Amino acid sequence: MTITTFNPPVRTLMGPGPSDVHPRILSALARPTIGHLDPSFGRMMDEVKTMLQYAFQTKNELTFPVSAPGSAGMETCFANLLEPGDTVIVCQNGVFGMRMQENVERCGAKAIIVKDDWGKPVDPKKVEEALKANPEASLLAFVHAETSTGALSDAKTLCALARQYDCLSLVDAVTSLGGSELRVDDWGIDAIYSGTQKCLSCVPGLSPVSFSERAQQRIKQRKQKVQSWFLDLNLVMGYWGSDGGRSYHHTAPVNSLYALHESLLMLQEEGLENSWKRHSDLHNALKAGLEAMGLSFIVPEESRLPQLNAVTIPQGVDEALVRKRLLEEYSLEIGAGLGSLAGKVWRIGLMGQSATPSNVMFCLSALESVLSDMGADINSGVALPAAQKHSFS
Amino acid sequence: MTITTFNPPVRTLMGPGPSDVHPRILSALARPTIGHLDPSFGRMMDEVKTMLQYAFQTKNELTFPVSAPGSAGMETCFANLLEPGDTVIVCQNGVFGMRMQENVERCGAKAIIVKDDWGKPVDPKKVEEALKANPEASLLAFVHAETSTGALSDAKTLCALARQYDCLSLVDAVTSLGGSELRVDDWGIDAIYSGTQKCLSCVPGLSPVSFSERAQQRIKQRKQKVQSWFLDLNLVMGYWGSDGGRSYHHTAPVNSLYALHESLLMLQEEGLENSWKRHSDLHNALKAGLEAMGLSFIVPEESRLPQLNAVTIPQGVDEALVRKRLLEEYSLEIGAGLGSLAGKVWRIGLMGQSATPSNVMFCLSALESVLSDMGADINSGVALPAAQKHSFS
Repeated sequence: MTITTFNPPVRTLMGPGPSDVHPRILSALARPTIGHLDPSFGRMMDEVKTMLQYAFQTKNELTFPVSAPGSAGMETCFANLLEPGDTVIVCQNGVFGMRMQENVERCGAKAIIVKDDWGKPVDPKKVEEALKANPEASLLAFVHAETSTGALSDAKTLCALARQYDCLSLVDAVTSLGGSELRVDDWGIDAIYSGTQKCLSCVPGLSPVSFSERAQQRIKQRKQKVQSWFLDLNLVMGYWGSDGGRSYHHTAPVNSLYALHESLLMLQEEGLENSWKRHSDLHNALKAGLEAMGLSFIVPEESRLPQLNAVTIPQGVDEALVRKRLLEEYSLEIGAGLGSLAGKVWRIGLMGQSATPSNVMFCLSALESVLSDMGADINSGVALPAAQKHSFS
Repeated sequence: MTITTFNPPVRTLMGPGPSDVHPRILSALARPTIGHLDPSFGRMMDEVKTMLQYAFQTKNELTFPVSAPGSAGMETCFANLLEPGDTVIVCQNGVFGMRMQENVERCGAKAIIVKDDWGKPVDPKKVEEALKANPEASLLAFVHAETSTGALSDAKTLCALARQYDCLSLVDAVTSLGGSELRVDDWGIDAIYSGTQKCLSCVPGLSPVSFSERAQQRIKQRKQKVQSWFLDLNLVMGYWGSDGGRSYHHTAPVNSLYALHESLLMLQEEGLENSWKRHSDLHNALKAGLEAMGLSFIVPEESRLPQLNAVTIPQGVDEALVRKRLLEEYSLEIGAGLGSLAGKVWRIGLMGQSATPSNVMFCLSALESVLSDMGADINSGVALPAAQKHSFS
C-alpha cells in the first residue's frame, strides 16, 4: 500500500460534533507556527482568555483551554477538586454522567449516584435528597447538556442546591457552551469544562475550563498533589495564569489555539445571545420537519437541547444503513445512538457553523429521500413545508 | 481593547521546539474537518499508525499518537505501566528526568533516582548498580535525548540492562524521534513517547507512543484501573486498536492528525536514515561556526545531540537581551536555558524542517551580528567560513 497525502471528503457535519468548521477558522489554524513562549503568542493567549470569559459569562481569573479534548477537561476538574476519600454526588442521565463516575472513582473518591432516565433532565428533587442524605459530600457534578440524549438540565437550580448544601458544583458544558444559555457567574457554577468542536465550531482537541474563586481555594489547599502532572492546575497556572510569567509547563497546541481564538472572535461578532437564539430557531425548524415526517424526539419538549436532536428510528429501518447512505450519497454525517441508545436513535446536531437554514433543509430532504427509498413508513413531502413555516430570520 | 484576528509573526524557529512547520503540513492541517468516526478518517488513522511504526522502527501493534502533548505521552506511559507500590529506576540528567520522578510519585509508586550531571549522558554503570540494588524494580525510565541539555544517552545499552534485570524500559524520545538513530524493536524498548513539534516538524499537541508486547501484557494484567480515564490504554485501544472497531472513546484532534499524517509522509519520502544524517551534518556545520565564534558546548562531543545545541553564553552578555534582539530584529527564536541551566546557556534547535543549510548560516550570522553589536568578546568574521567548510550535501 502506497501512502499519499490525505485529502478528506468534504462533509456536512450534523452529528454530535465535530461540527462544520468555518473557512475563517481553518485559515487561522494554518497560520505559521510560533513558539509557545513567544511574546506575541502570550498576547494572543490573553485574548483567548478574555473571549472565553465572555463565552462562559464569567469573570473567573482561572479560565483557559486545557491542551487536550473535552474528556481531559472533565478529568482536569475532578483530579484537581478531589482528594482520596472525598464524596461526590454524580448525576447520571446519559453516557457522560457515567464517565463522571469513572473519573471520581479513579481519583479514589466515592460517587453517590443520582439516576434519571436517559432522555430526561436531572431531577433537582432527587439531587436535594442526595445532598441531604450525604452531608459529607463536597462536590455536586452533573451534565448541563447530555450529548448522548439531547437533554438539557437546569444548571441554575442545581448549582443553587449545591451551594445551599455547601458543595462545589461541577458542570459538563461540552455541548452547551455557545449554543444554549449558560451563565457561570450568575448561576454560581464553581467548575466547568467544555469542548471546542461543538457549538464553538472550532477543531477538536481543546477543552475550555473555568473555576470560581471557591474552587481555586480548594485546589490551592489540597493536602495531596494532583494525581496528574499534566493536568495539575497549580502548575498549569504558571503558564496560563495572570501574573504574566508564562513559565514553561508543557508545549501548548499553538495552531489549535489560533483556531480557537478565531472561533471565539466569530462568537463575539455574532453575540452570545444571538448565537443561543440561532440554535433555538433552527432547532424549531428542524423539529417541525422531523415531526411532520413522523419521527419523534426522546426528550420532553421543555428539556430539549436545540443543538442535539435525538429522534427515534422508524420501525423496521436499518438505522446504520441510513447513516451510511447519507454519508456516501450526500456526504452528510448524522450521529448514531450512544450507550444504551445505540441502534435506537439518531442524533442530529445543529451546532455552531452547522446550524444554518440551508443545513436544516438539506438534512430534512436527504433524510426523507433515503428513508423513502428504503420504504420506511414516514410522511412524505411534508417535512420541508413544515420547516419552512418557521422564520429563519 | 478591541480583539481582532490574530496574525502571528513569521518566525524562524531554532529553539527547543516547536520547529518550523512546512507549508505542506500547514495545508494538510487546514483541510476540512470530518468526523472522528468517519470511515475515511479510520483509514487515515491506519496510515498514521503504519508511518509511526516506521519512524519508531517497530512492529508494535500498540503504536499511535496520544491526543495531547508530549507531557501527556509521558503520563500515558507511567500511568498505564505503574501501580501503587511499584518501584521504578528513574535516571535524571536534566529537566525531563525530574518530570519523570513527578509522574512516578503521583502514580503512588517509588522512584529510585540515578543522577548524572546536567549535560552528561546517563551512566550505564550507575544504572546497573541501581538495578542490582533494587531487585524489586519493575521499570527503568530514562530520557534518550534530554531537551534541557542536549545530551544523548545510550538507549540500546540501557534497555539491554533493563531486560537483563527483568525490568521494562520506558524511553523519552520527544526530541530524538526522526532526528537521531532510534530503533525500538532492535534495542528492546518496551514503552516510548515522543512529541510532534520537534524533529517531525508537525504542529504541537500530539504525542506518538509505542508499547511492546511485554508492556501490553503488563497493562492488561493490572490489578487496579489506570488512574486516568482519558489516558487508559485499555479504553483508548477500542478506538486506535487493530480490531477495526473504532469505538468512541474521546473526540480525536482530527485536523492535527491530518498534519501528523503529512509530516510522517514527508519523513518517509526523505527516508529515516537520511533525516538522521541531515540533522547530524547540519549540526557539524553549526558547531564549527559556533566554536569558531568562541562559544562552547556543555555536552561532551561523543554524547552531543545534533538537534539540540546547548552552548555557553559569552561572559558579561545579557543573554535574555540577545534572544530578545534576535526575535525582534531577525524574527529568529532560539531557546533559553531551562531549570538549573536558566541564564547559563542558549539552546539552539536544528529540528525537522528547521534543520536546513540556510538556517544554519542565518542563525550564525544573526547571532554574530547581535553579539558584536553588544560588544561581546567573540571572534568575528570566522563563523560562516568555518560552517561553510562542512558539506551541506
